[in-house]
Amino acid sequence: MPEFRQNMATKEWVIISPERAKRPSDFIKEMGKREPPAPFVAECPFCPGNEGQTPDDIYRFPSEGPWKIRVVPNKFAALQSNLTATRSYIGSFLATKGFGIAEVLIETPEHNKSIALMEMADVALTLTAYRQRHIEIAGNKDINLITIFRNHGSRAGTSLEHPHSQIIATPIVPPHVRYPIEQAVVHYDQFGSCVYCEMIEEERRQKERIIFDSDNFLAFCPFAARTPFEARIYPKRHSATFSRINDEEIEELAWVLRNVMLKLYNCLGNPDYNYVIRSAPVGDDHARYLHWYIVIIPKIATPAGFEIGSGIYINSMPPEDSARYLRETRTDH
Amino acid sequence: MPEFRQNMATKEWVIISPERAKRPSDFIKEMGKREPPAPFVAECPFCPGNEGQTPDDIYRFPSEGPWKIRVVPNKFAALQSNLTATRSYIGSFLATKGFGIAEVLIETPEHNKSIALMEMADVALTLTAYRQRHIEIAGNKDINLITIFRNHGSRAGTSLEHPHSQIIATPIVPPHVRYPIEQAVVHYDQFGSCVYCEMIEEERRQKERIIFDSDNFLAFCPFAARTPFEARIYPKRHSATFSRINDEEIEELAWVLRNVMLKLYNCLGNPDYNYVIRSAPVGDDHARYLHWYIVIIPKIATPAGFEIGSGIYINSMPPEDSARYLRETRTDH
Repeated sequence: MPEFRQNMATKEWVIISPERAKRPSDFIKEMGKREPPAPFVAECPFCPGNEGQTPDDIYRFPSEGPWKIRVVPNKFAALQSNLTATRSYIGSFLATKGFGIAEVLIETPEHNKSIALMEMADVALTLTAYRQRHIEIAGNKDINLITIFRNHGSRAGTSLEHPHSQIIATPIVPPHVRYPIEQAVVHYDQFGSCVYCEMIEEERRQKERIIFDSDNFLAFCPFAARTPFEARIYPKRHSATFSRINDEEIEELAWVLRNVMLKLYNCLGNPDYNYVIRSAPVGDDHARYLHWYIVIIPKIATPAGFEIGSGIYINSMPPEDSARYLRETRTDH
Repeated sequence: MPEFRQNMATKEWVIISPERAKRPSDFIKEMGKREPPAPFVAECPFCPGNEGQTPDDIYRFPSEGPWKIRVVPNKFAALQSNLTATRSYIGSFLATKGFGIAEVLIETPEHNKSIALMEMADVALTLTAYRQRHIEIAGNKDINLITIFRNHGSRAGTSLEHPHSQIIATPIVPPHVRYPIEQAVVHYDQFGSCVYCEMIEEERRQKERIIFDSDNFLAFCPFAARTPFEARIYPKRHSATFSRINDEEIEELAWVLRNVMLKLYNCLGNPDYNYVIRSAPVGDDHARYLHWYIVIIPKIATPAGFEIGSGIYINSMPPEDSARYLRETRTDH
């Protein structure tokens, strides 16, 4: 029987409408199989030896010798850092120059080592680079929002196969981000607690959607999942921004993130996916009502007219089933 | 130079970031060419002779003799009309049974006659069926939102080739729909006018994004278009709901809609697309602050991590260019 479910934090609704018992193998068939890439591709601009094809490093580790991770300005940036952020009207319509910061994190020199297949230590290097770049970019007084994300595969909007993440920082906090914050403020003012902390507690109580419950992190398929195998990772310690994660937490998160990605990889045959780290807007780092998290969305479903019109996603697999499949999936290569 | 632009009504922002001068032919190449379907497909459940494969008609025209248009309950409905709409908590999480109405409008007996290729009179029959079903469904006291939409092609989320639209009616008005309404109310209370009426006037003043400006409708690529070739059709007469359109307006809208779709078809080589008719929630039919409209989104771009995280779409073609290409495109078959 289909069911509407509400996301406790954002108040958005989804429809859980299981089709005839689908299994991960059905999704793999629908998505088509992907050939594993080669470890080195001579014409890949992110492979070692081709550093000249990208702008100069903003960040690099280690600082001497062969690099393990590099961050560079996005050569094909949608925004430019040398513009002003002043807004002005064109007739009745508001606009501003495309000021912003766009960076690419090249996560590894190895062309075929996406997060799921990396060593823990290398995942930790990526997370450390995220933190360093977030802190650095937040120092720009015109930047108000920093979005860290990863697109994997063409269905997820990237044509570049080499493992990489992106950061886009904007002067604008758009309604899409602001509305859930307003809901979290209302909750905080009413109940005196962070709605995300409560959601984490409730998911732990209900248990059936949990993938990993580690000391400091909870990974689960959320109650109001928008797609099959949507997964989320929340820090248990209340914190509004990823940039305040400490070194120990980074090590633990590397383990959780790598293993969630590896389970998705093994369960769904290396699916295309997006993941996003959502943090509070710059300046709200200590907000008691906001909580950073990672959302991982395998590109299994195609949002259509109903989703565009209503914002209500139709999810053909209950998150209880998605989580069970992921729990049952092994984490070896 | 890239630019942020705000949707005057919803306050959402987009980034207009033109890539090296792209042309419609580049998008056609990226999307791949589609073979035109056959006029009749024996195994298609919507082709004449296969009426037994769908549930019984709810609506049919003409009532006697061979049908030109049929509306049937969706056999694979995500929602069911025989459930109750009472909401209840599961722990701290809110849920309700999947009550709702899901219908399919089979627009023509001809398997290959999508809106772009239909006769005007047949498009008018489809619009008339939309109106009749909208009015009928709005009579259900538990239904609060009626979404009419069309998915065309697999990239737009449909596997069924035969020309059809869908209606999904829900007991829920989700935040995605409610937030823009709240913005429109704020505008109305502040300025005493419908923000959509003002947007229409401003687009007419600025002229450069207009596709068609007929007596009663304005078709244009909006100032803050989220994708290349996003197109919208607004009635000039203030009206909160499509269901109050009159017969004369239906004839005129059939002409405008058919020709916009035909221009997209000719310009982009029969692209996959979604369109949605957005109306006020049931009961707000006479609202002075809301305005119904049609939004048409060709599936050219793939939303990725940044769009998921921020809700800010990166549009690689200024709507001024999209509108110019569409104005220059012929409307013959």
